[in-house]
Amino acid sequence: MFNSDDARWMARALELARLGRFTTSPNPSVGCVIVHNGTLVGEGYHQQAGGPHAEVFALRQAGEAAKGATAYVTLEPCSHHGRTPPCAQGLIDAGVARVVAASVDPNPRVAGRGLAMLTDAGIKADAGLMSEAAEAVNTGFMHRMRTGLPFVTVKLAASLDGRTALANGESKWITGPAARRDVQRHRALSCAILSGADTVLADDASLNVRWGELPESVQTEYEQSRLRQPLRVIIDTRNRLHPGLKLFGLPGTILLLRGRASGDFGEQVEECVLPLADNGRLDLPLLLAELGRRQINHLWVEAGARLCGALMRAALVDELVLYQAPKLMGEAARGLFDLPELTAMDQIPQLEWRDCRRVGTDLKLTARVKN
Amino acid sequence: MFNSDDARWMARALELARLGRFTTSPNPSVGCVIVHNGTLVGEGYHQQAGGPHAEVFALRQAGEAAKGATAYVTLEPCSHHGRTPPCAQGLIDAGVARVVAASVDPNPRVAGRGLAMLTDAGIKADAGLMSEAAEAVNTGFMHRMRTGLPFVTVKLAASLDGRTALANGESKWITGPAARRDVQRHRALSCAILSGADTVLADDASLNVRWGELPESVQTEYEQSRLRQPLRVIIDTRNRLHPGLKLFGLPGTILLLRGRASGDFGEQVEECVLPLADNGRLDLPLLLAELGRRQINHLWVEAGARLCGALMRAALVDELVLYQAPKLMGEAARGLFDLPELTAMDQIPQLEWRDCRRVGTDLKLTARVKN
Repeated sequence: MFNSDDARWMARALELARLGRFTTSPNPSVGCVIVHNGTLVGEGYHQQAGGPHAEVFALRQAGEAAKGATAYVTLEPCSHHGRTPPCAQGLIDAGVARVVAASVDPNPRVAGRGLAMLTDAGIKADAGLMSEAAEAVNTGFMHRMRTGLPFVTVKLAASLDGRTALANGESKWITGPAARRDVQRHRALSCAILSGADTVLADDASLNVRWGELPESVQTEYEQSRLRQPLRVIIDTRNRLHPGLKLFGLPGTILLLRGRASGDFGEQVEECVLPLADNGRLDLPLLLAELGRRQINHLWVEAGARLCGALMRAALVDELVLYQAPKLMGEAARGLFDLPELTAMDQIPQLEWRDCRRVGTDLKLTARVKN
Repeated sequence: MFNSDDARWMARALELARLGRFTTSPNPSVGCVIVHNGTLVGEGYHQQAGGPHAEVFALRQAGEAAKGATAYVTLEPCSHHGRTPPCAQGLIDAGVARVVAASVDPNPRVAGRGLAMLTDAGIKADAGLMSEAAEAVNTGFMHRMRTGLPFVTVKLAASLDGRTALANGESKWITGPAARRDVQRHRALSCAILSGADTVLADDASLNVRWGELPESVQTEYEQSRLRQPLRVIIDTRNRLHPGLKLFGLPGTILLLRGRASGDFGEQVEECVLPLADNGRLDLPLLLAELGRRQINHLWVEAGARLCGALMRAALVDELVLYQAPKLMGEAARGLFDLPELTAMDQIPQLEWRDCRRVGTDLKLTARVKN
């Protein structure tokens, strides 16, 4: 069905798709390459919601050369009228002969209809080439389309012996500057950052993206003028946060989950009162559903052991990213997850390692929760 | 001083040296390659203490072809009469024209004298080619020669959140079979295994090398008939261990550090009473010095948080090997190191990551203590 030239062009389309990762949400990041008789005639990628889709840029560049060409797209072309007309129709109108898609769009409004439109118009349309790589470009979007919930990554920073702070709360800095820059990159890739009042109060944390602290590799592919702040979602059910905190003076929207609305904050802060769960704590599944409804694809969590533990217990975590410093903090220091005391090894939460690499002087370990 | 051919032959010599790693201690593992006019004419490696050195095997194979040849040895040829005559003299007698050594022997009885003997005999002798790789083959030997103490590697097995056992002591199995096989390999490479009575009692632990559980890659380079058991060093200052434990019924010598000698054990168990330190605990620096005196090059530690913490506090640890399972055990579970409560981040022990890799379903992380 696919040959090695197909793979080569799709790899290029994926490269293009990745260029949109910092700016396309809540839309997926998509790349498109148009090839005529073995020659690249057009390429493009989706840059931001409301702007043209990847196929539009690529077709525009290809012009007449699109006739009889093959279009490589990292995601099935859309079939519905959203903020832009359906791309499947655009490919038909341009007269392409073949469309290769990396993945089928799980968006219920598409879900194979784009490919069907093409086939109905007599275009050879296949999907599934390099689908794993394509999925990885849009982990959050794909997940939200399938489940209605954001993809949840919990960020952890700990010593070799799994401690996040000394007993007195001191934790600056466990990890080195390279790890902290990598965290900035993850924040920039996320639609929202979730944290708790404890974390905000402990460090007067900003939880924002700071251009100057992004890794250089990001600065070359993400224009400063396009810098976006992820929505900051802060759990403050006991109304302990006050407008004087650094967080509230910085650009970007904040969703503040409180016991009762105070009206103390400026217009960029939305105070939201959600019903509490039976245990008197915030109903986390409800919160995640609300974030899904707000089109949050990827949620990045930076929180203490209590919130991280509660998310794990509620089975709301999809991925852990652990920055591990080559340091020892000892038994008295604080741990990563508050979990109920377990008495048998077969009860403990199981994950799967996905990646391990060095980031400066630290290690970055990534694990996925098993489905 | 060295060219790319030199590097190629030294790489072969290092390959040979590694074949001795399971059997040469307390001697170093050494490989030798003899090359005449670009052709390999002899090679060999040291197989066990008391047996011929690498140079002897290689010269024997080379015969007359050694005349005018270059000898590549991973460690400076010895200059002293030990259990075998000095290899430097053997190389001189054979008429080699040039000797390239990867590393200088830090053994105070050699320490450059082997190279000097060669030079004095008119042979071109250089050292330092691929010295880092050569050092890594004999980490323990090199360390003991320089410091008088064994090189100490502490093995740890923990969950992603740094826990070694549930609060009730349950810990079978945190890590998977591949990690456990890798531990067998490390035990086989060690001269001695250090553990404490707690660990022995908790699991009725054997702490031995079991041929059938070694990784396949080891089984191909280490003959079963040569299988050796490292000395097992068990700290039992409160005389809690009894002869009925599994450990005492298995082949291999045991050094039992006790409060008082009991005479209860068989002849393969040496009860040893060491003076206690001021805190009423075993004087660990004294123990390590004693193990150095007994020619223990590499000490592999499998112990609980108390002994691991005590070794760290006494600055006796050189390396940590952490097998980390993708599991969460929570705050109530047991930690890795008992350390005094610290109050500032600049007081905590600092290490350096050396390696991270996957071993089956787990990660294996290696860190060195900074000097």
